[in-house]
Amino acid sequence: MLQPVPKPAAEVSTLMANLGREARNAARVVALASSATKNQALRVAAGAIRKETPAILAANALDVADARARGTAGSFIDRLTLDEKRIEAMARGLEDIADLPDPVGRVLATFERPNGLKIERVSTPLGVVGVIYESRPNVTADAGALCLKAGNAAILRGGSEGMRSSHAIHECLEAGLKAAGLPEAAISLVPISDRAAVGAMLAGLDGAIDVIVPRGGKSLVARVQHEARVPVFAHLEGIVHVFVHKGADLDMAKTIVLNAKMRRTGICGAAETLLVDAACAGTHLAPLVKMLLDAGCEVRGDAATQAADSRVRPASEEDWRTEYLDAIISARVVDGLDAAIDHIETYGSHHTDAIVTNDEAAAARFLSEVDSAIVAHNASTQFADGGEFGFGAEIGIATGRMHARGPVGVEQLTSFKYRVHGAGQTRP
Amino acid sequence: MLQPVPKPAAEVSTLMANLGREARNAARVVALASSATKNQALRVAAGAIRKETPAILAANALDVADARARGTAGSFIDRLTLDEKRIEAMARGLEDIADLPDPVGRVLATFERPNGLKIERVSTPLGVVGVIYESRPNVTADAGALCLKAGNAAILRGGSEGMRSSHAIHECLEAGLKAAGLPEAAISLVPISDRAAVGAMLAGLDGAIDVIVPRGGKSLVARVQHEARVPVFAHLEGIVHVFVHKGADLDMAKTIVLNAKMRRTGICGAAETLLVDAACAGTHLAPLVKMLLDAGCEVRGDAATQAADSRVRPASEEDWRTEYLDAIISARVVDGLDAAIDHIETYGSHHTDAIVTNDEAAAARFLSEVDSAIVAHNASTQFADGGEFGFGAEIGIATGRMHARGPVGVEQLTSFKYRVHGAGQTRP
Repeated sequence: MLQPVPKPAAEVSTLMANLGREARNAARVVALASSATKNQALRVAAGAIRKETPAILAANALDVADARARGTAGSFIDRLTLDEKRIEAMARGLEDIADLPDPVGRVLATFERPNGLKIERVSTPLGVVGVIYESRPNVTADAGALCLKAGNAAILRGGSEGMRSSHAIHECLEAGLKAAGLPEAAISLVPISDRAAVGAMLAGLDGAIDVIVPRGGKSLVARVQHEARVPVFAHLEGIVHVFVHKGADLDMAKTIVLNAKMRRTGICGAAETLLVDAACAGTHLAPLVKMLLDAGCEVRGDAATQAADSRVRPASEEDWRTEYLDAIISARVVDGLDAAIDHIETYGSHHTDAIVTNDEAAAARFLSEVDSAIVAHNASTQFADGGEFGFGAEIGIATGRMHARGPVGVEQLTSFKYRVHGAGQTRP
Repeated sequence: MLQPVPKPAAEVSTLMANLGREARNAARVVALASSATKNQALRVAAGAIRKETPAILAANALDVADARARGTAGSFIDRLTLDEKRIEAMARGLEDIADLPDPVGRVLATFERPNGLKIERVSTPLGVVGVIYESRPNVTADAGALCLKAGNAAILRGGSEGMRSSHAIHECLEAGLKAAGLPEAAISLVPISDRAAVGAMLAGLDGAIDVIVPRGGKSLVARVQHEARVPVFAHLEGIVHVFVHKGADLDMAKTIVLNAKMRRTGICGAAETLLVDAACAGTHLAPLVKMLLDAGCEVRGDAATQAADSRVRPASEEDWRTEYLDAIISARVVDGLDAAIDHIETYGSHHTDAIVTNDEAAAARFLSEVDSAIVAHNASTQFADGGEFGFGAEIGIATGRMHARGPVGVEQLTSFKYRVHGAGQTRP
């Protein structure tokens, strides 16, 4: 069992550089591996995770005991803690990823040129994916498997608090790779807890890392976005809006708003701000606000919203920019579709935003003009999830506009190349 | 006429920050502009360029005179110099871009979910594109037009030596934007020659720039790749290989090698290294080498190649890593397909590589295993060009694996979003 003992900086730097080189070499092998080989690795790993459940639980118990002894917060302990159900879900997750179609080698476009050249754009792996995560040990399995399925090598750096758990899970992934004849460096786990290891990854390990995916709280993501010298797939926060347009059916608006806010309040697709069209505020605002308050949601509103229910507290300017991740919502009346879009573009985070309306033209404008990764019409914002999109699984949700946007599944973990098929053509 | 007078750093920084803010605001407008509006801007700009040919030539004459007075190299002067033919080509280029299909709003994928949600992945603009270029004033028109067509705002920073020419061309683009009712900041030209302006762009102008495209020599691209804190679409060099496999027809190999090397030696798709399969070296090597030498190409070879013709000079280790961009080629015999792929992966730059063979299985392996943006079978490497690919025009060729790869046309200047169409669905 690895102990989280800090190492001298030079040692960390050498170790990380080696890890990068080995991952790059492994990436070349994994990129050319057949679907059957990659899926065998995933299925054997799933079996190993089931078989090793007692060992994983024992490792996790040590991590949890240490975290408790350090007085770590309860929510952190909850994310860190594994049980048989969570371990079974991890194993099933690997099998689900094995069942997905292979994202590598898809012909994305074909063009025949007048000179007879046939050009294909074909999906290829991205290369080496660095994943930096915090407390949840299951990211070890999920992220490693998604990268492998897409033909990439993964370098995983889990939080030091869960290192024993991650290590136990990683041994099962290694068993899968070994059984399939793939290099173990295809999924490597950074074996040290030093923060300098994260710094080395953010610098790109001398070009060995193609992209970094942070999985964790806002401070981790902010650090990664600020310091990374390589591309990052991430979202800093989800300041998610539901706009109830004058053309909205009140019952549908109530159902969607309640689900968008209260189904789970701690996920990035949870609504944080309710916008109600002035043209329907007279009929829709009070029932929506009452419903939220009655469901145990604190409401912070503008003057109109405060007037609708005496339990509403005043919203400050800061509230419009706040991702509560809790049973709190900010609410205001806006003067029509344009004002709603303006509010979202001013205060939003380009993650997920929804309109409720039966007016198709208004919906079309909202979907077109709101510049967010996911825009929804008459649907809850909590569908912002790779599984719900049918991607099988996701490594995260991205709000950047480069390469990946929205839920990042195996398809977005690929790049492409052009294959040119000729019969001796030369360029005049 | 703007004069290239350096400004105090604080002034540069304020000016660039304003430019960034205005470009970001303009990007929101251009993103929603109709195809007709964007195409009108391009067509009016083309007309203005034709009409203002005398003014553009006069501005260019001043730039050229200054460059000559500074003793600038002849090749630089050639790239800087405009004539009526080059100006007409610029105008036609804008019209060609107007004729392309609109890359924004394409439905890239659609999935119906079991709960009835209909999810579409739709192409959207990227945002703000920074273009940093050197001597060629026509990049002002080409790059500005490509960005506009894809619904992006462009911030163009041309070399100080061509600033008067770029400014005259930019005025024509502004006339087009104005006529179409689009904000002039949709295509802005950095009006100062200070190097600090480039630094500000590489830092991303406080998040205003989404991607940078460098157009110019290796030192410019290297600086941009090294310093940029935003994504870059570029290739540092094109170390392009042609592998003549044992299954190659000699006549086809001669035609392709000659075209790949000698059609134009200064472009990135020009071959720099010839690899000949040991299994056919006895019949193919000497004729290929003789043909190149007779065509005026210097050949630097390994021992076998030197033995094939007394005019061959010895190649050093450095030659395999060199992009000559000249009538020079390195050549060696390799021990079959695997050795050829190894050589390309070791020394290549992942730009464009070709195999000549009638063996389909060998070709398939080459196209799959060589990890380059463009891999070609029985075709010249000089087809590595957006126009030849049918993209209409290109802003450059990228060798990175993120977002864009190969020729970057209007399609790769877009991102995407997800549109979710519901009927009141909530997540269970």
